[in-house]
Amino acid sequence: MSNDNTVYVGNKPVMNYVLAVVTQFSNGADEVAIKARGKAISRAVDTAEIALNRFLQGITKKEIRTSTEEIETDGGPMNVSSIEIVLMHRV
Amino acid sequence: MSNDNTVYVGNKPVMNYVLAVVTQFSNGADEVAIKARGKAISRAVDTAEIALNRFLQGITKKEIRTSTEEIETDGGPMNVSSIEIVLMHRV
Repeated sequence: MSNDNTVYVGNKPVMNYVLAVVTQFSNGADEVAIKARGKAISRAVDTAEIALNRFLQGITKKEIRTSTEEIETDGGPMNVSSIEIVLMHRV
Repeated sequence: MSNDNTVYVGNKPVMNYVLAVVTQFSNGADEVAIKARGKAISRAVDTAEIALNRFLQGITKKEIRTSTEEIETDGGPMNVSSIEIVLMHRV
């Protein structure tokens, strides 16, 4: 059992990430963190909602955090928003 | 003072929504809820982050909720993710 299972959501179809989340719980994870930055944030929320509503039993949202990260681009440093949605077994 | 000030984030430039949030607090709101659905969710997170980091003093995140809403489309009902980010005066 590990507490730091993380799924990074990017530009692939949302079901790829849903499957990754479901797989981590199937493999015995206590918690799974879904993380995304920028435009992928919407897909991270979709991932959590679809996983919870259609695939996972006895799992709930533990915490949702948003933050601002500074990334390096060709035009210099830029701020980008990020989200972390932590799912866990219902206690 | 009202507790149900809401800014609905859509497809306009993010600063429009940041200004709306800042204005509501300037007008005496205790809390402001930032809501969005679908792809606009990323922009809602940007709105909250920019408002908090660049414009608002003494305001903090109170709560972030995500949910799934059913909307009617030409092709029948469809599920869409939504987010609500509530900002409030730091206590």
